[in-house]
Amino acid sequence: MTLQAVHDLVGEGEIIGDGNFFCRAVASLGKAQAEDLSFVSGHRHAAEALQSGAGALIVAQLLDGAAANQLVVADPFAAMIRVLEKIASEKRTEPAGIHPSAVMEEGAVLGRDISIGAGAVIRQGASIGDRSVIHANVYIGRRSTVGADCLIEPNVVIMEDVSLGARVHIHAGTVIGGDGYGFVQLEGRHVKIPQVGSIEIGDDVEIGALSTVDRAALDSTVIGRGTKIGDLCHVAHNCIIGEDVLILPISVMGGSCKIGNHAIMAARSGLPDNITLGEGAVLAGEAVAYKDVEAGAVMWGRPARPKNQQMRIEVALGSLPQMQRDLRAIKKKLAAG
Amino acid sequence: MTLQAVHDLVGEGEIIGDGNFFCRAVASLGKAQAEDLSFVSGHRHAAEALQSGAGALIVAQLLDGAAANQLVVADPFAAMIRVLEKIASEKRTEPAGIHPSAVMEEGAVLGRDISIGAGAVIRQGASIGDRSVIHANVYIGRRSTVGADCLIEPNVVIMEDVSLGARVHIHAGTVIGGDGYGFVQLEGRHVKIPQVGSIEIGDDVEIGALSTVDRAALDSTVIGRGTKIGDLCHVAHNCIIGEDVLILPISVMGGSCKIGNHAIMAARSGLPDNITLGEGAVLAGEAVAYKDVEAGAVMWGRPARPKNQQMRIEVALGSLPQMQRDLRAIKKKLAAG
Amino acid sequence: MTLQAVHDLVGEGEIIGDGNFFCRAVASLGKAQAEDLSFVSGHRHAAEALQSGAGALIVAQLLDGAAANQLVVADPFAAMIRVLEKIASEKRTEPAGIHPSAVMEEGAVLGRDISIGAGAVIRQGASIGDRSVIHANVYIGRRSTVGADCLIEPNVVIMEDVSLGARVHIHAGTVIGGDGYGFVQLEGRHVKIPQVGSIEIGDDVEIGALSTVDRAALDSTVIGRGTKIGDLCHVAHNCIIGEDVLILPISVMGGSCKIGNHAIMAARSGLPDNITLGEGAVLAGEAVAYKDVEAGAVMWGRPARPKNQQMRIEVALGSLPQMQRDLRAIKKKLAAG
Repeated sequence: MTLQAVHDLVGEGEIIGDGNFFCRAVASLGKAQAEDLSFVSGHRHAAEALQSGAGALIVAQLLDGAAANQLVVADPFAAMIRVLEKIASEKRTEPAGIHPSAVMEEGAVLGRDISIGAGAVIRQGASIGDRSVIHANVYIGRRSTVGADCLIEPNVVIMEDVSLGARVHIHAGTVIGGDGYGFVQLEGRHVKIPQVGSIEIGDDVEIGALSTVDRAALDSTVIGRGTKIGDLCHVAHNCIIGEDVLILPISVMGGSCKIGNHAIMAARSGLPDNITLGEGAVLAGEAVAYKDVEAGAVMWGRPARPKNQQMRIEVALGSLPQMQRDLRAIKKKLAAG
Repeated sequence: MTLQAVHDLVGEGEIIGDGNFFCRAVASLGKAQAEDLSFVSGHRHAAEALQSGAGALIVAQLLDGAAANQLVVADPFAAMIRVLEKIASEKRTEPAGIHPSAVMEEGAVLGRDISIGAGAVIRQGASIGDRSVIHANVYIGRRSTVGADCLIEPNVVIMEDVSLGARVHIHAGTVIGGDGYGFVQLEGRHVKIPQVGSIEIGDDVEIGALSTVDRAALDSTVIGRGTKIGDLCHVAHNCIIGEDVLILPISVMGGSCKIGNHAIMAARSGLPDNITLGEGAVLAGEAVAYKDVEAGAVMWGRPARPKNQQMRIEVALGSLPQMQRDLRAIKKKLAAG
Repeated sequence: MTLQAVHDLVGEGEIIGDGNFFCRAVASLGKAQAEDLSFVSGHRHAAEALQSGAGALIVAQLLDGAAANQLVVADPFAAMIRVLEKIASEKRTEPAGIHPSAVMEEGAVLGRDISIGAGAVIRQGASIGDRSVIHANVYIGRRSTVGADCLIEPNVVIMEDVSLGARVHIHAGTVIGGDGYGFVQLEGRHVKIPQVGSIEIGDDVEIGALSTVDRAALDSTVIGRGTKIGDLCHVAHNCIIGEDVLILPISVMGGSCKIGNHAIMAARSGLPDNITLGEGAVLAGEAVAYKDVEAGAVMWGRPARPKNQQMRIEVALGSLPQMQRDLRAIKKKLAAG
């Protein structure tokens, strides 16, 4: 792609230098070489950009003294996403059409222009929306619905009665619709509480690789529109997750948790059963909230406490052995005194 | 299903109201609507039940003032499980018979009335017990045995020399029989200790989605009868897990751990290598026991301590920064005095 | 295998007893029976060896008073690994040749003497090195390269543009090449930063079951030669992992972490984004390092601190409630005084 083509793709900006410069690849400032395109997302990176070997740069302001060809745009980050989207769409050429080894049971409903990879299984009563891509060896259970323009990566398992909105992206190996963990003791044995609920996943949700979303015992487990979940996360039965929530990798939700819109669970954070994380609240990395978190709060640690309080505790912990020695000395002194 | 049919299924109880009431679905008290069946499991839920929109209720005692039709039974929870089991069995219609794309190697032994889904692979010397259901794209390795009435969900991988009892239920994507993590340093390089042991899983065991159970180095990794393991758990090589143990999601066992009968590992709890969790002991959510836990003990925190002790520590931690300030003031005062 | 055959396989040592003794199986000292071979790895195990029921023992020094036949070698552990490797290679008979249901797209490049299991999919432009074994229902994406003598277990997913060296072993269900977790907020919505980088995995790397290695946003995620990763681990985008690193099960690396050669991450340890773990450094089980760790350091706890410091803190924590009571008493006394 030439720098002029990049300009046309972004739809705005001014080229300083050679518009015919051919960008071989996109790379970070530190790794970019003479044939690469890179980008400068803010003032902080200006110095790094001047030292970059990139042959072309997308910048917000003309970078004086840079040898690279430059495309000056209003928002370099948004422009770069446009470029990356184009690259990604070319790299990820999907299976075209329906592979002969895919299994569509009678009564499966298939939209227009869909792709289904080798060995995928679409059970009776399931439906696949227009233009959706189902990769190899994916399983779509009975009565489950996949909306339009979804991307389901290889070996994903979607059990029965799961509903996916439009433009949902599920990464490889993830399991949607396993049973929630529910047992009751009857006559000394653990007896399974059959999990007969469903799962509703809104538009524009993305779920990383090897995560598990369990079906509700009754009713529905819900993941709201625009929510993004990372790899190896666990959403237990009956969770109600709001819209535009960020749930980073390895995060865990217990049963019947409620997460408000725009909340953030940082990597490896956790909620036990029945906890509410309020709208816009933030649970820091590795934090675990044993009590409800109010809207907008920023919580650290385990048990989670307000950020500033937890920071002070963690600092004070470093002095704990010394405090213990001091206390002993004081007691001795007072006893002697 | 009519309320009369529910009564007949449960096998006991008295109908107050209309036995011909048709229950469209089962829902929780809070979500149930006029065509739904719900249930009241204890006194605590009576008030909620009176406000429920459910058209029919399973109750232990006649609920005065409720508009809903009622089925009065001795144990509403047990009755509801019966109903849910019937619903679950109808929802989960399994693959019937052996799909033509399933691969049975020569020397695989197949029981009567089994189902094997599309793309499943049964290797040489493996055996599948009567009435067991092997879902799509499951792999059963050489010499592994699946007992009668098992349910193996899609994309499960069972490697070689694994033995499953009767009525074992393995959720989607779980891997049974990967190598234990064992390396030894020889001449500066990490050399693999080949893991040539096996795995023995008892009757009535359930394992959630995307969990890993590793084979023993030598000997066997063992999971006892009736034990229930959640999603994304890890059982390392040579663990010996007793009977009727509850291991909640995201729990982790290191190598050669021993877990007594009826013990409980709550969500995200952990045992490092070689730890014993005694019979009936409880490890709370996120707790990690670095020492053996005696039978019946209830342990919290990390490092795990007896529940009451850990609770006091966690409360006191909130005052730690203030304690530090107090100590400084006292030292100053004493030094001045 | 006779004890003489064991001797010949190991290539050294002296047989004391019956070289024709037939070893039925290999077992640990405690479990071994009269037909089994076991081994004594050090002086500590001599007493246990004398009580073992093993019919044959591999030992470093002649064990006086033992009834078992003995093979005396320089390094029993290395000898036993030789024996176990032979057993493992026999147990794990791989799919021979290319199964007719495997799907090789046009333009896939296949080496000599490879095996490809049922339902595996090799996409256009991917290549498989000589003698490599691709198990059932594995997915190898476009332009990904698998080196020679690799072992890819069932249901592994390797997305596009991933490069594997020689002798790489990936356990079942693992996903290599999912997207890194990268979103940016534009006009109130989370917009995906397309992840268009690649992954480079060196020779002799082993990765356990159900782990995720995410592709770089730009550039490459790198795992160096000889590094061994356990089950259920997470390597985020742009991590650079050195050579001969040990990463035990359930360990987690955030984005752009750097891990030096010979470092060790013990089970369930973690690194947030952008942290460097120095060469030969050790992060203990469950430890999380929020700051860079210098070469050779041994860190415990969360937040990770030097081992001795953290041990003292954990011990002192047990006295924290008592310290709080002492402080109150002292304050009272001083106020009264």
